[in-house]
Amino acid sequence: MASYTHPTALVESKEVGEGTHVWAFTHILNGARIGSNCNIGDHCFIESGAQIGSNVTVKNGNMVWEGVVIEDGVFVGPAVSFTNDLYPRSARLPEAGARAQKANWLVSTTIRHGASLGAGAVIIAGVTVGEFATVGAGAVVTRNVPSYALVVGNPARVKGWVCQCGMPLRFKGERGICVECKRSYRRSGEELEKAE
Amino acid sequence: MASYTHPTALVESKEVGEGTHVWAFTHILNGARIGSNCNIGDHCFIESGAQIGSNVTVKNGNMVWEGVVIEDGVFVGPAVSFTNDLYPRSARLPEAGARAQKANWLVSTTIRHGASLGAGAVIIAGVTVGEFATVGAGAVVTRNVPSYALVVGNPARVKGWVCQCGMPLRFKGERGICVECKRSYRRSGEELEKAE
Amino acid sequence: MASYTHPTALVESKEVGEGTHVWAFTHILNGARIGSNCNIGDHCFIESGAQIGSNVTVKNGNMVWEGVVIEDGVFVGPAVSFTNDLYPRSARLPEAGARAQKANWLVSTTIRHGASLGAGAVIIAGVTVGEFATVGAGAVVTRNVPSYALVVGNPARVKGWVCQCGMPLRFKGERGICVECKRSYRRSGEELEKAE
Repeated sequence: MASYTHPTALVESKEVGEGTHVWAFTHILNGARIGSNCNIGDHCFIESGAQIGSNVTVKNGNMVWEGVVIEDGVFVGPAVSFTNDLYPRSARLPEAGARAQKANWLVSTTIRHGASLGAGAVIIAGVTVGEFATVGAGAVVTRNVPSYALVVGNPARVKGWVCQCGMPLRFKGERGICVECKRSYRRSGEELEKAE
Repeated sequence: MASYTHPTALVESKEVGEGTHVWAFTHILNGARIGSNCNIGDHCFIESGAQIGSNVTVKNGNMVWEGVVIEDGVFVGPAVSFTNDLYPRSARLPEAGARAQKANWLVSTTIRHGASLGAGAVIIAGVTVGEFATVGAGAVVTRNVPSYALVVGNPARVKGWVCQCGMPLRFKGERGICVECKRSYRRSGEELEKAE
Repeated sequence: MASYTHPTALVESKEVGEGTHVWAFTHILNGARIGSNCNIGDHCFIESGAQIGSNVTVKNGNMVWEGVVIEDGVFVGPAVSFTNDLYPRSARLPEAGARAQKANWLVSTTIRHGASLGAGAVIIAGVTVGEFATVGAGAVVTRNVPSYALVVGNPARVKGWVCQCGMPLRFKGERGICVECKRSYRRSGEELEKAE
């Protein structure tokens, strides 16, 4: 696919891959890294130091900060809130200025391959969302999300399990089968893995 | 009222009604339908296939997707998140590509006449918000909202009832009276209806 | 610091202080008041009548309405939702038009000196967030937040206490000490105050 940048978008980064589309009023700072074949919607902001893989969909109204790592094939729904500081203060506040000078305020977040983040979800800095997991719309994620898990609520809790294709799994004992594509998974303790 | 489009707005649709105002940095795609006498705030995105009635207020920062139907007189508060897919994946993710090709991933949402959606609310695809209902700010709506109901929380639950004018109702037995305009309503099972 | 306005920003107010930076696609209306040495991120909207002090950080994607008062040194995280009406309806809805004409629909909100609002938090009109309090990401604040409190959840509840510098306090009896900078506080009933 050919690359495309909307005339109103501001793309200052030199590290945007082939075939990636960037839509209206979006601002990508110098030093942001974005892979190939992505779709970045309107009104987004991608900060220096943010890392986005290939085949990623970033819907409208997203801000991806330094410290956020989004792997290949992820879906970031509209208006997801990422964070990179667990104890934020205005850097201009005299009482907090000393802390802002230190390097250790920055806390990383990783969204693993194939995962989905629902609309308006909030991701607290420091968590990892596992491969092919789905974070429900409006969920507030305060701890790690296992691969293939579906989490919802504030704070987010595991409510079910989803397939690589995104659809729910139905279980017979420890074996989960996708209701749509029939891929098969195996429960192993608190986790799920793909069956052969 | 005369129509108005801010110089920075991008209005590609030919189906925007008379007297509708469109504010700064807003993008309305070709194929979006918007009625007359609406107010669409800054930084909004109205997608092809979205349907908005007349006399609607869409506050800033909203994205209205294909599949979302907003009837006359609705108030959409700032930064409400609509959705149109219950099992989202990046369409560019190879493991999920087959599903994106099917037509049945799109799930509709309807906001009925006179309803209000509070700031930062999240509306899960497939629900109907009833006439003159109010969704509280920050609520996550996962099932249908009855007419005149006030819902809050994550997930959203009925917490009270509101008048057509928006103000709370006070009940004596099965009869609810608006604290402000004195319109009168009658409880009927789990629902509320306007009394004559 | 020198003032700065990004070329795509629209600054219509004449009351923006010295040294304040305004970033891309942000719109500041005439009559909005902003102090000195602030940082206002991309895609923000500051309405006529909004009041923002000095040394304030307003991250991207924020809308600050008439009736919202933000004191000096506050941190407003990305995509925080403020509100100024407890019973919103479209002003264009005939059934609610009479109410929109009255002056008393506007309800004020105050964010006190040094406080922080986490990403995606929702602040219900009428509350005061106390000095140096921290509202967690994704919290929905429905009542006043005491000074130095950390609140999380929907609805937001006190979960702990933080220092002026933002870091957590550790308690021995009624005395709280910052884990980072060692400032000292004293519990007094339901409240906390700075110890000498």
